[in-house]
Amino acid sequence: MIYFDSDYMAGAHPEVLKRLVETNTEQTVGYGCDDYTKRAVELIREACGLPEARVQLLVGGTQTNATLIDALLARHEGVLAAETGHIAVHEAGAVEASGHKVLTLPSHDGKVAAEEVEHYIEEFYRDETYEHMVAPGMLYISQPTEYGTTYSKAELEALAAVCRKAEIPLYIDGARLGYALAAEGNDLSLKELAALADVFYIGGTKVGALFGEAVVVRDPKRLPHLFPLVKQHGALLAKGRLLGLQFEALFTNGLYEKIGQKAVAQALRIREAFRAKGYEVVVPSPTNQQFFRLPNEVIDRLKQEASFELWGPRGATETVVRFVTGWSTTDEDVDQLIAML
Amino acid sequence: MIYFDSDYMAGAHPEVLKRLVETNTEQTVGYGCDDYTKRAVELIREACGLPEARVQLLVGGTQTNATLIDALLARHEGVLAAETGHIAVHEAGAVEASGHKVLTLPSHDGKVAAEEVEHYIEEFYRDETYEHMVAPGMLYISQPTEYGTTYSKAELEALAAVCRKAEIPLYIDGARLGYALAAEGNDLSLKELAALADVFYIGGTKVGALFGEAVVVRDPKRLPHLFPLVKQHGALLAKGRLLGLQFEALFTNGLYEKIGQKAVAQALRIREAFRAKGYEVVVPSPTNQQFFRLPNEVIDRLKQEASFELWGPRGATETVVRFVTGWSTTDEDVDQLIAML
Amino acid sequence: MIYFDSDYMAGAHPEVLKRLVETNTEQTVGYGCDDYTKRAVELIREACGLPEARVQLLVGGTQTNATLIDALLARHEGVLAAETGHIAVHEAGAVEASGHKVLTLPSHDGKVAAEEVEHYIEEFYRDETYEHMVAPGMLYISQPTEYGTTYSKAELEALAAVCRKAEIPLYIDGARLGYALAAEGNDLSLKELAALADVFYIGGTKVGALFGEAVVVRDPKRLPHLFPLVKQHGALLAKGRLLGLQFEALFTNGLYEKIGQKAVAQALRIREAFRAKGYEVVVPSPTNQQFFRLPNEVIDRLKQEASFELWGPRGATETVVRFVTGWSTTDEDVDQLIAML
Amino acid sequence: MIYFDSDYMAGAHPEVLKRLVETNTEQTVGYGCDDYTKRAVELIREACGLPEARVQLLVGGTQTNATLIDALLARHEGVLAAETGHIAVHEAGAVEASGHKVLTLPSHDGKVAAEEVEHYIEEFYRDETYEHMVAPGMLYISQPTEYGTTYSKAELEALAAVCRKAEIPLYIDGARLGYALAAEGNDLSLKELAALADVFYIGGTKVGALFGEAVVVRDPKRLPHLFPLVKQHGALLAKGRLLGLQFEALFTNGLYEKIGQKAVAQALRIREAFRAKGYEVVVPSPTNQQFFRLPNEVIDRLKQEASFELWGPRGATETVVRFVTGWSTTDEDVDQLIAML
Repeated sequence: MIYFDSDYMAGAHPEVLKRLVETNTEQTVGYGCDDYTKRAVELIREACGLPEARVQLLVGGTQTNATLIDALLARHEGVLAAETGHIAVHEAGAVEASGHKVLTLPSHDGKVAAEEVEHYIEEFYRDETYEHMVAPGMLYISQPTEYGTTYSKAELEALAAVCRKAEIPLYIDGARLGYALAAEGNDLSLKELAALADVFYIGGTKVGALFGEAVVVRDPKRLPHLFPLVKQHGALLAKGRLLGLQFEALFTNGLYEKIGQKAVAQALRIREAFRAKGYEVVVPSPTNQQFFRLPNEVIDRLKQEASFELWGPRGATETVVRFVTGWSTTDEDVDQLIAML
Repeated sequence: MIYFDSDYMAGAHPEVLKRLVETNTEQTVGYGCDDYTKRAVELIREACGLPEARVQLLVGGTQTNATLIDALLARHEGVLAAETGHIAVHEAGAVEASGHKVLTLPSHDGKVAAEEVEHYIEEFYRDETYEHMVAPGMLYISQPTEYGTTYSKAELEALAAVCRKAEIPLYIDGARLGYALAAEGNDLSLKELAALADVFYIGGTKVGALFGEAVVVRDPKRLPHLFPLVKQHGALLAKGRLLGLQFEALFTNGLYEKIGQKAVAQALRIREAFRAKGYEVVVPSPTNQQFFRLPNEVIDRLKQEASFELWGPRGATETVVRFVTGWSTTDEDVDQLIAML
Repeated sequence: MIYFDSDYMAGAHPEVLKRLVETNTEQTVGYGCDDYTKRAVELIREACGLPEARVQLLVGGTQTNATLIDALLARHEGVLAAETGHIAVHEAGAVEASGHKVLTLPSHDGKVAAEEVEHYIEEFYRDETYEHMVAPGMLYISQPTEYGTTYSKAELEALAAVCRKAEIPLYIDGARLGYALAAEGNDLSLKELAALADVFYIGGTKVGALFGEAVVVRDPKRLPHLFPLVKQHGALLAKGRLLGLQFEALFTNGLYEKIGQKAVAQALRIREAFRAKGYEVVVPSPTNQQFFRLPNEVIDRLKQEASFELWGPRGATETVVRFVTGWSTTDEDVDQLIAML
Repeated sequence: MIYFDSDYMAGAHPEVLKRLVETNTEQTVGYGCDDYTKRAVELIREACGLPEARVQLLVGGTQTNATLIDALLARHEGVLAAETGHIAVHEAGAVEASGHKVLTLPSHDGKVAAEEVEHYIEEFYRDETYEHMVAPGMLYISQPTEYGTTYSKAELEALAAVCRKAEIPLYIDGARLGYALAAEGNDLSLKELAALADVFYIGGTKVGALFGEAVVVRDPKRLPHLFPLVKQHGALLAKGRLLGLQFEALFTNGLYEKIGQKAVAQALRIREAFRAKGYEVVVPSPTNQQFFRLPNEVIDRLKQEASFELWGPRGATETVVRFVTGWSTTDEDVDQLIAML
């Protein structure tokens, strides 16, 4: 069986695992105060071009979003997000459980449009009853989005400009950031993204780590009390060095980039193979997630040797499916899939 | 340098790590639906003598307490706990962040007394204004406690009887449960504890795992919607098998018991050595945490070769210190420490 | 100046105020345990045909919605509501502040469609990832809606059937219930509504009281701990009899009905007058709120002698406006307005 | 029957009620934007000597505490309070429901000691693990306290100095503030209190109003978004002028002071009468609440003609009782009580 269900089905990239193994018996202080974490923080700051940034390592994506959104918002504020955003749909109400509303915007293949964000904020404050409503207190976007699409440099600049004008922070969920950086046609470097976002995170769980997300706060003064909030959200890992070691490995010798590049290249091969066979590519995704509309009989046939997800409920004659590549996808897996088409 | 700071300073017990390494490239479904997790669940059910129990694996202790307490309490209820309890002191308000009050009881070396719990509940309902106050909705205890002490079988039976009478669940924080099971003079088996607690967790982080806590819900009908609450609390690990694999290893060939036994034996050797030298043993702990009152000059001398924590602020001439053993403590470490006294 | 801004601009109906004045110096116990409140509860039970119902008097609408929704939902659940619903828009995030998501449905002039509610719930549970999403735990509707429209008996029966099938409570925000009961073409009595709703409230603030909302819980066993939750939400009035006295007055000699009838009759006169002048009636409202699209110069002219609200931002040449009648609207006010057209 | 149960058993002082009656049919805008509220705000600012203060009128005490504490605290902070404080005991967990812990201090007849507050804060930051604990983010005191005792000017200055040094706001619950201002031996004027507190409220419910509490925020910049938080907490009264009218009346011609003075004088007469009969005065209260230890047979005899509360459970032979006076207590009531002793 070959697997294209998701990018979190295997363990860690061997380089990452190696570090955990070779340091296993060392004794270090907990909670991320160890030297491995410090080194990871330095590597991430360097990669982002932000020597002063606060870098906080957390375990998982929902946890990271819930903690940081809670940290960034005042009590009367909510978070703007695409109606398809992970926080709006698939986090079991974690944002609301911290007391904040998700204010939804239309999704354009998973993305929000700068002019629509701006319009929302303008209309909000033009409404005389706005103090009876939840104020837009930050913008959440994901790069790449839940549909594999990406913001261009110009699009992100436009969003950042809207946020700056409205004096609200721009937060980027980078659970799959490695695949956006390696996306077909990408014109947005990590440094450029880091300069535009107020807070973002670099996803580890889906890009080669066992687990782990690295939050980058451009201006540490924005979140002076992040540590106790991380603890309060149950997001503080006792053996914090496990996060430090993994991110140290990912940001050494360009591993994070390599993982992204290989997986995206594989995904694009898959996309071209499906397209060549005449199947509809449902979303113009330049990253490691690809969505196709397939006849049900093709799905049934492929399922005999390949594992992948239906995207939404099965249709009468055809259904949208998702194929995902990751660090553990081999070129042979892709060859085999293509041969089956 | 030899380390006695805590039981979460090293990585995982080699048997645990081995499983993570040898399965690393396997592809499994996420979120704890994989076969390794299923096997771990079966092993834990068996060890607890609870074939029908719901077992849920989570990442860390504060997260586990916050999630389960939130799941167990109604909105108008709070959780009874010793004033020294971890949830009352060292979880940065995680319980309150979910909307619940911690109702504190006197601590007797970290333990609560059954008669005091009963008295609290009786007085509460005798007060005519009780509907203006937070109702005691569950009892939280830790076994062993934050001070290393343990409840005897009779004490736990008394607490369980009080809870049953008051119709509130008894919850046991077993972050260090392995050390209680191996405690000097312990007369309470895992099966007995599992039969008395309504919900408890078996700590992995401090007993040989990289991370992980296994929650056991005796009657699954008590918490029919635990999964979405776990997700909502940001406590759902994407690569859930990492938890399954670790608990599978810990509950294979009695590893969990062995880790506890070795560490406790070492701690007791340390205790006797200090006692023999005439130092005060501050808390009658039969587990892997030991507390001594030492002259400051002794502390300073020991600190040159041994790492350990002050317990509270440094005193003028003497200070209470804590020594902790764990899976990675070697007998040579202990020998060396004793030789230094 | 004549006022049509809202139905909460004047004090209390004289019959209501009279009761407060004539009982002012009496001494009664607090928190709603007094005899006036007991009598009001009995009168409301009788009017609803629910002799066993739990009736709880609260102060205001947002408070009532937030408290009851919090009381009705489990932690993993959210509340279904029209995207135009008061809780979704104009309560400053009070529902989210208690930790719950508002799950929005399309609005049809302020109403939700039974088939769309049913579809939402069905699709939710058909989604394999539903435990990662917020479960629909109750349905919130308002009668009349924020746009003055009303559910017919058949429509409410359909919604109740959907809720019963899904085993979720149906909650009705009756902030302006008096005007729905008196609505043009209304075929739904208070008793019928009370039999279909699981929980609803009878609005006092907007229907002749100084303040006050009467919550009716058909089956008291559904909310056994409502009192402490009311207190916890800061919704418990110390001098609770003020609520009892007001609802006693409103439910004596059909006052609540009379207030509704008079105001609706006035609103319909206003509607017909605008319609006769050729202005667009924007929403087909049969109640005390009427919405018209007027040329800006007409608005400016009317504003010289009449006070009313723009509904949304002022347009370039024409704007939607709202006229509202209430207990204090006199027939002369309406005559004067019509004369101005 | 004569009533000494509490100070919220009757309606409003006649001067207050009169204003509600004579303005009843006027039409004003809602939510506290009306002219009566503006005038009340000006009167309160003047009485406090704080022409720039933000004054916000709310309905009840628990609501006020919950809303303001939530507004003042950051997410990682808790509120320091006496263990007997209203927020710690009798608000059904309202503070925790907003996510904040109440950090308790010893009570000295209901009061906290400045040196103990200072010590708590110093010890907190001396603890190396303080970021794992809930930070003291404000100090809550009540004036007078729940036991009728009051802070002297020197005591309040000391508390204010501790708070200023720790850079946390001092919040005063003035639910019965009128009685503290009139207390026997009081040396603290409203202006002086207003200059020392960062935020406090002037209680109306227990001092002559039907309901209502006036929050005073010395520096409005401290709480720039109070309005939406008030709404979010369900604390915004639609017919806001009802609050304005009442506080306007209370702060016209010294009514607030007069109510306090009369009730305190009556309470002191009662105290002296009990003392003269040899009964123990349990708390040295100089305000309108008095606590005595009485033989049960005396209680039973008095109860035949007087209504008052037991303070805690009935003892075997004697019990502590509370007598409270208020605006509606007549001198004849007091004469009658004294004659019964």
